[in-house]
Amino acid sequence: MKYALLIQYDGTFFSGWQLQKKGERTVQGEMERASAEIFGVPTRVTASGRTDAGVHARGQVCVLEGETTVPAAKLPACFNTRLPPDLKVLAARAVAEDFDCTRHAKRKTYVYRAYYAETDLPLLARYAARLKERPDVEKMREAAALLCGKHDFKAFSSSGSSVKTTVREIYKLDVRMTENGHTMYEVEVTGNGFLYNMVRIIAGELFAVGCGKSMQNIATALAGGGRSCLAKTMPAAGLTLECVDYGVPLFGNGLED
Amino acid sequence: MKYALLIQYDGTFFSGWQLQKKGERTVQGEMERASAEIFGVPTRVTASGRTDAGVHARGQVCVLEGETTVPAAKLPACFNTRLPPDLKVLAARAVAEDFDCTRHAKRKTYVYRAYYAETDLPLLARYAARLKERPDVEKMREAAALLCGKHDFKAFSSSGSSVKTTVREIYKLDVRMTENGHTMYEVEVTGNGFLYNMVRIIAGELFAVGCGKSMQNIATALAGGGRSCLAKTMPAAGLTLECVDYGVPLFGNGLED
Repeated sequence: MKYALLIQYDGTFFSGWQLQKKGERTVQGEMERASAEIFGVPTRVTASGRTDAGVHARGQVCVLEGETTVPAAKLPACFNTRLPPDLKVLAARAVAEDFDCTRHAKRKTYVYRAYYAETDLPLLARYAARLKERPDVEKMREAAALLCGKHDFKAFSSSGSSVKTTVREIYKLDVRMTENGHTMYEVEVTGNGFLYNMVRIIAGELFAVGCGKSMQNIATALAGGGRSCLAKTMPAAGLTLECVDYGVPLFGNGLED
Repeated sequence: MKYALLIQYDGTFFSGWQLQKKGERTVQGEMERASAEIFGVPTRVTASGRTDAGVHARGQVCVLEGETTVPAAKLPACFNTRLPPDLKVLAARAVAEDFDCTRHAKRKTYVYRAYYAETDLPLLARYAARLKERPDVEKMREAAALLCGKHDFKAFSSSGSSVKTTVREIYKLDVRMTENGHTMYEVEVTGNGFLYNMVRIIAGELFAVGCGKSMQNIATALAGGGRSCLAKTMPAAGLTLECVDYGVPLFGNGLED
């Protein structure tokens, strides 16, 4: 039987999703360890996509194959007694054998969070980056509009991954401020897929524009300009994979788009 | 010279504010260690009030006395290079010799945060408690209204502290829902002071009422009923000391009431 799992993790103390050679602590590693206990055999767990070291996920989706008499609805509790506090399974369901959680993902939504303060704030630093200036949100929104749609985002990616095409489509790119004891600047982006570091580079460029950088660099970058005309990659702690959308509601709860 | 400092800390890995005998990690301990380095002599640091193990503070106020050529405006940076990531000084200023940061505190505001989910959520668990049912916020507000004003809150305190009087005044007690990927239930309380565990007991009773418990127990407790008619004390992780108000703006920033 093939199962899809909805999982949430605090990425702070994970070296990302993917298994590492040297036995570093990874989300995949923890999921496969718990799966082996539950299914009694080594079990491969695949995610909708890898997240980097330090990146969080509110609603990541992963799949595994295994035989068990435990009904799918009871699998989350089974996993959660075996998982650490920073990684939990929120829902599980049986899926068709041909369900491919990587390729069938239609849209992914990430949020990048940042705050302005003169010093790092202990209560915000775990899930947000600190900005050294207060950004102009209206300017950020103008810049965000330039990035929406289908573009070659090659300049918005870090080297180190090989992909067939660097064309991606951004369906929605919102900039908003929320208030909860401190102003938080959030960049929410929904797209059909993202290149390596793409969301962190987009967020960095939008914050830079909000702090006075010319928007012209975005047009240049989209027209074939290099990575170097864009601001630097934002730190991992501010990034959260919010949800993965398969076009149909997989789990029927609020953590899906 | 006497200085007041505005500090923020993530209480997760502190055994509370107050120095402990066995050398446990405390906020006061870290502040006094950094102060001794800066002022060159052992320096006592006093807070507006103690916070318990695991309780957070967004805007705690503390004072110390010492002689230094460093101007007050530069003290935060001086401290912050010597403090760990979970404790930072946000502002500092010289105050009058007779300023008493404990007795002169006119109002304190705490927020207790909780969420409903079937399992602990890694991205919320650090700063909020999990509820096993979804509370009715309107009922919680009705119950909150009973607690506002000047009352003997003896039943709303844990044993273990000796105070002259158990009468306190609550100026404001709000219940609200916020939304950021998941619904958060927040109980915000402003009062002239709080008994040991009082905010965590109030929050627990309000959540219990929201989940169906009769409001009658609150009237009974305020009329001299014992601790036992009230719900249990909520866990520390959900509690944050938001700000301390001295009737005058001490630091002139958004973290004061």
